[in-house]
Amino acid sequence: MITRVRSAVSSIIGGIMASGSTGEQNNPDLPDPPLRFPYSRPDFLGLSPDEVECSADHISRPILILKEMKLPWSTGYAEVINAGKSALNEDQACCEVVELRKRPSDPSSPSYTPTGRRCSSLPNGDILESIESTEVKQLDFHYWGLFDGHGGSGAAIFASKFLHLHIEERLQELLEILQNPSLQAPTCLGEENTVHHFHPSAGCSQRGLSRAASLRGAAGAPGSPNTSAPRFFIEKKIKQESLVVGAIENAFKEMDAHIGRERSVYCISGGCTALVVMHLLGKLYVANAGDSRAVIIRAGEIVPMSSSFTPESERQRLQFLAHLQPSLLGNEFTHLEFPRRVTKKEVGKRMLYRDFTMNGWAYKTIQEDDLKFPLIYGEGKMARVFATIGITRGLGDHDLKVHNSDISIKPFLSCSPEVKVYDLSQHEHGTDDVIILGTDGLWDVLSNEEVAEAVTGFLGNCDPDDQHRYTMAAQDLVMKARGVLRDRGWRIVGDKLGSGDDISVFIIPLMHANVQPQPS
Amino acid sequence: MITRVRSAVSSIIGGIMASGSTGEQNNPDLPDPPLRFPYSRPDFLGLSPDEVECSADHISRPILILKEMKLPWSTGYAEVINAGKSALNEDQACCEVVELRKRPSDPSSPSYTPTGRRCSSLPNGDILESIESTEVKQLDFHYWGLFDGHGGSGAAIFASKFLHLHIEERLQELLEILQNPSLQAPTCLGEENTVHHFHPSAGCSQRGLSRAASLRGAAGAPGSPNTSAPRFFIEKKIKQESLVVGAIENAFKEMDAHIGRERSVYCISGGCTALVVMHLLGKLYVANAGDSRAVIIRAGEIVPMSSSFTPESERQRLQFLAHLQPSLLGNEFTHLEFPRRVTKKEVGKRMLYRDFTMNGWAYKTIQEDDLKFPLIYGEGKMARVFATIGITRGLGDHDLKVHNSDISIKPFLSCSPEVKVYDLSQHEHGTDDVIILGTDGLWDVLSNEEVAEAVTGFLGNCDPDDQHRYTMAAQDLVMKARGVLRDRGWRIVGDKLGSGDDISVFIIPLMHANVQPQPS
Repeated sequence: MITRVRSAVSSIIGGIMASGSTGEQNNPDLPDPPLRFPYSRPDFLGLSPDEVECSADHISRPILILKEMKLPWSTGYAEVINAGKSALNEDQACCEVVELRKRPSDPSSPSYTPTGRRCSSLPNGDILESIESTEVKQLDFHYWGLFDGHGGSGAAIFASKFLHLHIEERLQELLEILQNPSLQAPTCLGEENTVHHFHPSAGCSQRGLSRAASLRGAAGAPGSPNTSAPRFFIEKKIKQESLVVGAIENAFKEMDAHIGRERSVYCISGGCTALVVMHLLGKLYVANAGDSRAVIIRAGEIVPMSSSFTPESERQRLQFLAHLQPSLLGNEFTHLEFPRRVTKKEVGKRMLYRDFTMNGWAYKTIQEDDLKFPLIYGEGKMARVFATIGITRGLGDHDLKVHNSDISIKPFLSCSPEVKVYDLSQHEHGTDDVIILGTDGLWDVLSNEEVAEAVTGFLGNCDPDDQHRYTMAAQDLVMKARGVLRDRGWRIVGDKLGSGDDISVFIIPLMHANVQPQPS
Repeated sequence: MITRVRSAVSSIIGGIMASGSTGEQNNPDLPDPPLRFPYSRPDFLGLSPDEVECSADHISRPILILKEMKLPWSTGYAEVINAGKSALNEDQACCEVVELRKRPSDPSSPSYTPTGRRCSSLPNGDILESIESTEVKQLDFHYWGLFDGHGGSGAAIFASKFLHLHIEERLQELLEILQNPSLQAPTCLGEENTVHHFHPSAGCSQRGLSRAASLRGAAGAPGSPNTSAPRFFIEKKIKQESLVVGAIENAFKEMDAHIGRERSVYCISGGCTALVVMHLLGKLYVANAGDSRAVIIRAGEIVPMSSSFTPESERQRLQFLAHLQPSLLGNEFTHLEFPRRVTKKEVGKRMLYRDFTMNGWAYKTIQEDDLKFPLIYGEGKMARVFATIGITRGLGDHDLKVHNSDISIKPFLSCSPEVKVYDLSQHEHGTDDVIILGTDGLWDVLSNEEVAEAVTGFLGNCDPDDQHRYTMAAQDLVMKARGVLRDRGWRIVGDKLGSGDDISVFIIPLMHANVQPQPS
């Protein structure tokens, strides 16, 4: 159900789709490189180019929902474009079921096409799907991703096409380990699994200090790692779950490096947040880098499944880095935080500040150096790093610089997600129990409680057997966050300001996870 | 009630009390400098030298409790020495009511005596108490501190004598601000409090990126901080509470620097954790650096009031520092973590690891560099930094080095506490509602739940008007954690191993806080 309204912005889209929007990252002396992918909406919406164009109408802001195509587990999805802050909808989404198969070939040099299936490149450039008959064991994972772009839609589109393939590659290497649920993750591959005993007399009875010599000596002191001391030492037991978490963490890093490599050839504009939910072997893995959010609603109760990474939530990490490597501040910024800009006439007076060690505030005597612009500045949604960027984790932004400066922002941005694990087998789930993923456009105007109430209320009024109930609920949420256009802009319940941002929402029912077939 | 048992260790104590125990920090070429303070037990126990000596009996492990002296709010206290891991009890404790008074003199150059009262030094060396008549306004804070030493008792004793005075000094500067509860903390002292409006058009409508120029230009771009742009910008409002938190944080830093300075003249052996509870203006501030723990028990419910800082909980901070400044590892250690020591024959194989970006684990091909000893090694209570120290925040340890090496450990240790605030006015408190502070000797063998059950059960059987009930409950807790000496060592309920560590416990009733008189 797409409201089809053509508007004056249509013509703009063509221009932007051809050139890409590179935000702060333009080099005016060079022609833009070609786009890696054209602007589009998520594949699963099945939109025609005409419909894509219509979807970008900032005046009517049509809410897009799933039409015919069905997503796994009857997942619901809805989205809407922003009210004008960028020409295109910079959110992107992806939903895939990815098969892991045991293959005879070397898994360390895969070649990708962005279709959710791994393929092999022939020397003549043809693509050959790997031969099914040699792939006996298999394992599926379900995957949902939301990507909120900024400074252009390039990174978000690119990440929506590839992140699940990077995760697939990492998990492929673990296939045999994952297929044996009773097996603890082997510490070293290709080695007999020696049992390492812990020897309580290894010198650690004293909590504060240990006799360093005995501990380090247990496996040889540094410099003599091959001493033949008996192998009585601690060995951490690593659960399979931790391997999946590590695989996702490293896949995010590889995705970021992938963008970094391809940007020498293609235009991949801006950066993006990434919020990913994966279902594998009865567990949900929720990985978040940025300020999108995932919450589980179970019997009406809210279980937060992500934290937001913003200049405020990551202030101490960023200040610590700047404190250790002050050259990254380019002599223009200070790592100290002040409640507002310091003015020259305040030098010598005492003003509130805090550094990387502090959560509270104290007074310091202002010096000339404190007149520099603060690394972290602003509050809430207005908080910025280097007066530029409002999120501190995500993908892309390799070339992002401070305006009119050579100061690179990327060293302060992390591509590492926080991964939370939810064991589905620990709970019973009814038809109204869901995990909701939304970009910040949703959560800026609706609290967890309001979202939970809206979704629970909406689903309670639907036929439990209606496959479209989760998409209808997503549409309802997007509508509640966008609001309706009145004289004084977009307004929601209580005449509050609606979200002028792009809004994208997945609603994934959890009951389906319980009845998924397990791998052979 | 001190069990008076003399034992063979008595004679050892004299020797150690004279020389101090400097752990890893001895320089064999130099004679030890004099002790700053002799070994003792907390002042409020009022022990004679004889009793101090008796308290260190590792065989009988007498539990020391408050005798005649009464602590504020009828606070309960009990302690016991370890089972032999160090000659002396390296825990220390302090409880004070500290007065803040407005004084005419310059507060920036105070002179301290460790009595809880600030004094002025006369040029001839005499001490003069500041003149009461000029001190009109006043404010009290209540203070309880636990210090768990390691590598000697010097730092713990020193911190128990001085930390509250450093907090006093910081709060003294804030006295006028704190005495006006309606006053928001002024951003700049000695300046008229200009109202700074937030101007929504300051260029931040886009979440991801802002036009840097407009924001930085608001108060003048870097390099031209005095431009006359209108002062429409964000100003954070800082609550008084945040000033108290900042004062405590900075007092910890000053305490650590104080130990650092005095160690050039005196022997201040080892380091210590610090757990502090302060009551000021109706709020509890709980500051923790180390692995002691504070929990509130309210109507039988547990409210954790501290987190532990250990090599495991702070792994990523430490690995991040080592990653950024690898020279701190002295070419002997690696910042990567492995489940166990890597042996030379595993070079080329794939082994589990994780770096500062990861919480999960992944496989990497082992290289020669990975044979170095891991910066973080071991699990749970056995986890160590540099194979040496099991806590990562605290005071002292300035000279701590890796055994047989010139690698300094101090850069990895933080003296910054985490401060949690509990607003007493938000809850009603009965006679059995308490905050319990314990060193790790308590919590190693008893869970929060077991402690809550024990204390709630014990207090329920006491006369509510008995002033000693909290000390009796503390004694009961220490007894439950120490256990009784059997053939196979100290045993607690269920024949589990009791704590062989020093154990110190404060039990502070919260009801008294509600009826404290507020300052004039």
